[in-house]
Amino acid sequence: MKVKYHLIHEEKNTKARLGKLETNHGTVDTPMFMPVGTRATVKGLTPDQVKECHSGICLANTYHLWLRPGEDIVEKCGGLHKFMNYDRPILTDSGGYQVFSLAKNKEKDITEEGVHFKSHIDGKELLLTPEKSIEIQNKLDSDIAMSFDECPPASATHEYLKKSIERTLRWAERGKKVHKNENQSLFGIVQGGPYEDLRKFSAIETVKMDFDGYSVGGVANDDESKEDMYKAIEYSTPYIPKDKVRYLMGVGEPVDILEGVERGIDIFDCVLPTRIARHGQAFTRDGKKNFNNAQYKEDLRPVEEDCDCYCCKNFSRAYIRHLISVGESLGGTLLSIHNIRFLIRLTEEIREAIREDRFLDYKKEFLDRYEKTK
Amino acid sequence: MKVKYHLIHEEKNTKARLGKLETNHGTVDTPMFMPVGTRATVKGLTPDQVKECHSGICLANTYHLWLRPGEDIVEKCGGLHKFMNYDRPILTDSGGYQVFSLAKNKEKDITEEGVHFKSHIDGKELLLTPEKSIEIQNKLDSDIAMSFDECPPASATHEYLKKSIERTLRWAERGKKVHKNENQSLFGIVQGGPYEDLRKFSAIETVKMDFDGYSVGGVANDDESKEDMYKAIEYSTPYIPKDKVRYLMGVGEPVDILEGVERGIDIFDCVLPTRIARHGQAFTRDGKKNFNNAQYKEDLRPVEEDCDCYCCKNFSRAYIRHLISVGESLGGTLLSIHNIRFLIRLTEEIREAIREDRFLDYKKEFLDRYEKTK
Repeated sequence: MKVKYHLIHEEKNTKARLGKLETNHGTVDTPMFMPVGTRATVKGLTPDQVKECHSGICLANTYHLWLRPGEDIVEKCGGLHKFMNYDRPILTDSGGYQVFSLAKNKEKDITEEGVHFKSHIDGKELLLTPEKSIEIQNKLDSDIAMSFDECPPASATHEYLKKSIERTLRWAERGKKVHKNENQSLFGIVQGGPYEDLRKFSAIETVKMDFDGYSVGGVANDDESKEDMYKAIEYSTPYIPKDKVRYLMGVGEPVDILEGVERGIDIFDCVLPTRIARHGQAFTRDGKKNFNNAQYKEDLRPVEEDCDCYCCKNFSRAYIRHLISVGESLGGTLLSIHNIRFLIRLTEEIREAIREDRFLDYKKEFLDRYEKTK
Repeated sequence: MKVKYHLIHEEKNTKARLGKLETNHGTVDTPMFMPVGTRATVKGLTPDQVKECHSGICLANTYHLWLRPGEDIVEKCGGLHKFMNYDRPILTDSGGYQVFSLAKNKEKDITEEGVHFKSHIDGKELLLTPEKSIEIQNKLDSDIAMSFDECPPASATHEYLKKSIERTLRWAERGKKVHKNENQSLFGIVQGGPYEDLRKFSAIETVKMDFDGYSVGGVANDDESKEDMYKAIEYSTPYIPKDKVRYLMGVGEPVDILEGVERGIDIFDCVLPTRIARHGQAFTRDGKKNFNNAQYKEDLRPVEEDCDCYCCKNFSRAYIRHLISVGESLGGTLLSIHNIRFLIRLTEEIREAIREDRFLDYKKEFLDRYEKTK
């Protein structure tokens, strides 16, 4: 079965939408946040710990799994769900972003055929093509596969982007043609940088190919400004049909989730909650807290009061501070659980606010408190 | 309440004993294996994951917790049970072993007062005395505290050991005098290296002080031979009253657990199951398996067939091999769960064998299979 998006409610004052996404591994509510399991594991967490955060879809990484252990091994193990023992939906990205960001020495050669580059692990010469990306994802057997696209740098000119989009459209077409897995949906990706005309062109042409869902891509580069990201969404979503789900790739700062939802985005993913956790940081309603900081040494409160996660229900800030300060990995694990749950709770509250047509009030209230500590 | 040991059955053909140890945090069956939570965390595991291994007592480390976060902070947090959220019994060691093994540059000055040494973290000059060790443990509020003892190297002469034991006896006396925590038991430690006369002397004199339990110490040094370890046990246990529990410190290789039980030991602890796990190794009935090895790349079986642990019930060797080979910490966590459960299952089977007076048959069967792969 292909995924089916059901639009439940459009918020009165914004483009925010409440929906449900039916998949082969259960129905999930949107807007939602997807934890990232790059190498078939959300770093430091068991799949049960991920599920206890009330996770829906989990993301895994085609590029990384292609290199190690290889898609054939995952296929032999019965696909990604069985391999990593996650029985809820899984989305795989196309590998495109990683080829562009991780290629050894950042050297790559983009041709019509695909991208030639060297492995970041052993320097081996590799070629990733639209067909290869889809073939790998077919074998990984995720619920949702992504089209292979070029992710141009934020510095790319309008001229370059135009050519890149045209090629990405041809790549999307080629990928669609070889996509064989009947139980796997395929999403198209809208590119176009911060340019209104390019986003419109990319969106309209991508939608013509009739994908099972659409992603707004090319917005997660570190050097791109937030305003450009928001514009990219605004310029893309009007051309995506309302009965298809919309996914903003690689974005997960609370403020960006709120801004994305306001502009009609349904799905987000980001490594941020686990990455900052390993460095001792936690999301809270009052901004980020850094547990490398000695101020928490004797603090008996949970990381966040009123949080229902395993970390907050069972441990004090003093204990988390201890684990982080002595370098025990349990510290990163517990903060990862908290941070993932934090973003998922944020989307739960967002859904409630959309349902009650008070999204802008909710957003203001959240951000006023969250940013007060900056 | 002090711990109470109940002897249930003495095996017919050996000195192996089946018993129960009543504590303030529940009654545990012996012989048993204690996982080690050095810095108030069993490395990489949540306390719930430890409990899912059917753990009884968990060990924590006085030396490490004294240095970081400090016993006052643990006390403010309500003691170790609350701090690390482990509601089953906790035993703290005295810090003696760590002072001798971890002191910066291995330099230390042993005086009648105690041990002067430099912190392995920041080189700060420190003094650990019998009184200080007990005071720290009182504050940590473990169920069982250990007397502060000297751990002489395996190379120590009979003459040196004699003087060391006499001092350790005076230290034990001093520690007992200042021990204030009515809810905490205090164990004495028998020393004496591989010498029958010294073990006898140390055991008899230590038992005269009437501790709540007894440990056989000075056997876990890496450079000591196994035969010396077994002799040390044989020379010590005859003088420990049958109604007190017997703990062999720092020992956890399957063969040593079996040899220890045969000689009347009730409790074991060791960092081995978590340490080898982080290096990709698993205990199995057929010896240790190393998941750095490519032979497991496509192996769909669990780490150990018939094992009931979370790792074996949910993941394949291929997945564990993948996690270990790419350096994902979940690999070490899952193997730690398996290895701890493995040793706890070993003690469960040992108890069954003792109950049925077939301990030697069980031991032979286990070791024949375990050592066949060597």
